[in-house]
Amino acid sequence: MGALAAGIAIGLAALGAGVGNGLIVGRTVEGIARQPELRGTLTGTMFIGVALVEAVPIIAAVIAFMVM
Amino acid sequence: MGALAAGIAIGLAALGAGVGNGLIVGRTVEGIARQPELRGTLTGTMFIGVALVEAVPIIAAVIAFMVM
Amino acid sequence: MGALAAGIAIGLAALGAGVGNGLIVGRTVEGIARQPELRGTLTGTMFIGVALVEAVPIIAAVIAFMVM
Amino acid sequence: MGALAAGIAIGLAALGAGVGNGLIVGRTVEGIARQPELRGTLTGTMFIGVALVEAVPIIAAVIAFMVM
Amino acid sequence: MGALAAGIAIGLAALGAGVGNGLIVGRTVEGIARQPELRGTLTGTMFIGVALVEAVPIIAAVIAFMVM
Amino acid sequence: MGALAAGIAIGLAALGAGVGNGLIVGRTVEGIARQPELRGTLTGTMFIGVALVEAVPIIAAVIAFMVM
Amino acid sequence: MGALAAGIAIGLAALGAGVGNGLIVGRTVEGIARQPELRGTLTGTMFIGVALVEAVPIIAAVIAFMVM
Amino acid sequence: MGALAAGIAIGLAALGAGVGNGLIVGRTVEGIARQPELRGTLTGTMFIGVALVEAVPIIAAVIAFMVM
Amino acid sequence: MGALAAGIAIGLAALGAGVGNGLIVGRTVEGIARQPELRGTLTGTMFIGVALVEAVPIIAAVIAFMVM
Amino acid sequence: MGALAAGIAIGLAALGAGVGNGLIVGRTVEGIARQPELRGTLTGTMFIGVALVEAVPIIAAVIAFMVM
Amino acid sequence: MGALAAGIAIGLAALGAGVGNGLIVGRTVEGIARQPELRGTLTGTMFIGVALVEAVPIIAAVIAFMVM
Amino acid sequence: MGALAAGIAIGLAALGAGVGNGLIVGRTVEGIARQPELRGTLTGTMFIGVALVEAVPIIAAVIAFMVM
Amino acid sequence: MGALAAGIAIGLAALGAGVGNGLIVGRTVEGIARQPELRGTLTGTMFIGVALVEAVPIIAAVIAFMVM
Amino acid sequence: MGALAAGIAIGLAALGAGVGNGLIVGRTVEGIARQPELRGTLTGTMFIGVALVEAVPIIAAVIAFMVM
Repeated sequence: MGALAAGIAIGLAALGAGVGNGLIVGRTVEGIARQPELRGTLTGTMFIGVALVEAVPIIAAVIAFMVM
Repeated sequence: MGALAAGIAIGLAALGAGVGNGLIVGRTVEGIARQPELRGTLTGTMFIGVALVEAVPIIAAVIAFMVM
Repeated sequence: MGALAAGIAIGLAALGAGVGNGLIVGRTVEGIARQPELRGTLTGTMFIGVALVEAVPIIAAVIAFMVM
Repeated sequence: MGALAAGIAIGLAALGAGVGNGLIVGRTVEGIARQPELRGTLTGTMFIGVALVEAVPIIAAVIAFMVM
Repeated sequence: MGALAAGIAIGLAALGAGVGNGLIVGRTVEGIARQPELRGTLTGTMFIGVALVEAVPIIAAVIAFMVM
Repeated sequence: MGALAAGIAIGLAALGAGVGNGLIVGRTVEGIARQPELRGTLTGTMFIGVALVEAVPIIAAVIAFMVM
Repeated sequence: MGALAAGIAIGLAALGAGVGNGLIVGRTVEGIARQPELRGTLTGTMFIGVALVEAVPIIAAVIAFMVM
Repeated sequence: MGALAAGIAIGLAALGAGVGNGLIVGRTVEGIARQPELRGTLTGTMFIGVALVEAVPIIAAVIAFMVM
Repeated sequence: MGALAAGIAIGLAALGAGVGNGLIVGRTVEGIARQPELRGTLTGTMFIGVALVEAVPIIAAVIAFMVM
Repeated sequence: MGALAAGIAIGLAALGAGVGNGLIVGRTVEGIARQPELRGTLTGTMFIGVALVEAVPIIAAVIAFMVM
Repeated sequence: MGALAAGIAIGLAALGAGVGNGLIVGRTVEGIARQPELRGTLTGTMFIGVALVEAVPIIAAVIAFMVM
Repeated sequence: MGALAAGIAIGLAALGAGVGNGLIVGRTVEGIARQPELRGTLTGTMFIGVALVEAVPIIAAVIAFMVM
Repeated sequence: MGALAAGIAIGLAALGAGVGNGLIVGRTVEGIARQPELRGTLTGTMFIGVALVEAVPIIAAVIAFMVM
Repeated sequence: MGALAAGIAIGLAALGAGVGNGLIVGRTVEGIARQPELRGTLTGTMFIGVALVEAVPIIAAVIAFMVM
């Protein structure tokens, strides 16, 4: 039962992280293509945003390792 | 049964946090690309919003650790 | 069975809170980027709205702690 | 079985309340950003609307406490 | 089995009421922001509409209390 | 089994009635905000439409009371 | 088993009737707001359409009463 | 098992008929509001279309009566 | 088990036929409202299209009668 | 078990054929309403497309007859 | 169990083929209506595309025949 | 159990291949209708893209044959 | 149980790869149709993107072969 | 049970990675087609974004290998 729980937890977490990061990075690329001189600022905001998005999936990964 | 509950709880929480944060950070990046001089204000509002979004998933993570 | 109920309750609550808060904060950031002089008013309304959105998920978290 | 019912009830209620409140507050913030002089009226209507939206989820919370 | 039925009934009712009320109040706030002099009329129509939307979920709440 | 059937019936009915009424009343409020002099006609049509939408959910409520 | 069948039948029927009627009446209200002099014609077409939409859910209600 | 089959058949049929008829009648009302002089032609096409849409759900109703 | 299969087959077939026919007839009504002089051609194409759409659901109805 | 398989196969096939044919015929009707002199060409392409769409559902019908 | 597997395989394949072919043929008809002189080229590309779309469903049909 | 696994694998693969190829070929047809002189280049890119899309479903077909 | 796991893994992987590749190649074809002189660059980026998208499904295929 | 968990974990991870990468690379190709001189910058941001998106699915793959 523990293995099944780990599979569900990390699977849903990967789905959420993929969609969330896809939204952020996609809009960042779009913003750089429109205003190349803001490249540094937009990339910086992107890194912070991605780090915040990854927080809960990382906890999910930890839990998945623990229940395994 | 406790492990399965932990997996469902943290999995759904990661999905919700990913989508919610993706919406907020994506629009922040878009706003900075349009008006770079508001970078500080927008980033500040973004941090507050992300912290508020993360509140319930963090509780979900705590519950997941407890039922494990 | 109690642990499974707690997982479902807090998981769905985190999903709802994430989507709801994402909508509110995203539009607030968009509004500040368009009219920076209204920053105080928009942030204030945002805090009230987020507090109202969080009300039911907080109850869900309490119930999840209780059935655990 | 009572705990599972409580989890489903409060979970779906939190999902509905989150989406509904998100729609209302998001549009209120948008309206204030467009016409700041109507801040009082829009916030008042928002409070009434949120209270009406919260009515059924509150009942759901009461039922969840009772079947627990 | 009665508790589970109560949970499903009130949960779906809260979801429907949340979405329905969110649509109505959101458009009312939008309408007031566009034409503030119609505030009374729009709010009145909103109250009637919300009352009509709440009718079936209230019955669902009654049934949920009865099967409990 | 009767209680579960009642819960499913009234829950889906409340969901359908909420969405249907939300569409009708939302567009009525929008129509009044655009042409206030048609308030009477639009409200009248709205009442007829809501009554027609409520017909099947009311039957569902009756069936839910009967199988309980 | 008969009660469960009745619940599923009338529940789905109410969902279909709610969405279908909502589409028809919503567009009728929109049409009257745009051209008030066609009120009679549009309302007449609306009644015919709603009657046609209600046909199958009424049969579903009859079947639900019979299998109960 | 026969009753459950009847409930599923007539429930899905009512859902399909409601959505299909709602699309047809809604566009007919929209067309009449735009060109009132074509009222007869549009209503005639609408009746034929609704009759064609109702064909399979009617067969579903017959099957539901038979397996009951 | 045969009755359940018949219910699933005819139910999904009615759902598909309803959506498919609704798309075709809805666009035909829209086309006639835009160009009334093409009424005959459009109605003819509509009949052929509806007949083609109905082909597989009719087979589904035959199979449903046979497994019953 | 064979009857259930036949029901699932033909039901999903009818759903796919209905949606696919609805897209093709709907756009054909729209194309004829815009350019009536291309009626023959568009109808010919439509017939080929519908025949190609029907290919796999027909195989599904054959399989459904065989497992019955 | 083999019959059930055949039903699921061919049913999902028919759904995928219907949606995929509907997208291709619908856009081809739209392209011919806009530029009739490209009829040959567009139809040729359409045939190649449909053949490529049908490849995997045909394999699914073969597998369905084999597990039957 | 092997047959069921083969059915699920090839069914989902056919669904994914159908949707993916439909997107690619549909846009290729649209591109040729807009710029006929690029027919060779667009068709070549289309073939590469379709081949890449088909890669994983072909593996799925191989696995389905092996577990059968 | 291993065969079923292989079927689910490769099936979902094929679905994800199909949708992801369809998005990339479709936009590449659109970009070439708009600016043919960038054909080499766009195709190169497309190959890198497709290779990155295929990475996880390939791992899924390896796992599916291993649990078989 | 371990094999099933591995299948679910890697399957959902592949789905999430496919959709997320598809969004990022698709927008990068679109951006290069609009501004070819930014090719280096956009490709660089794309690589970082894809690496961040792949992080959680890679962990999911590791977990899938471990529970196998």
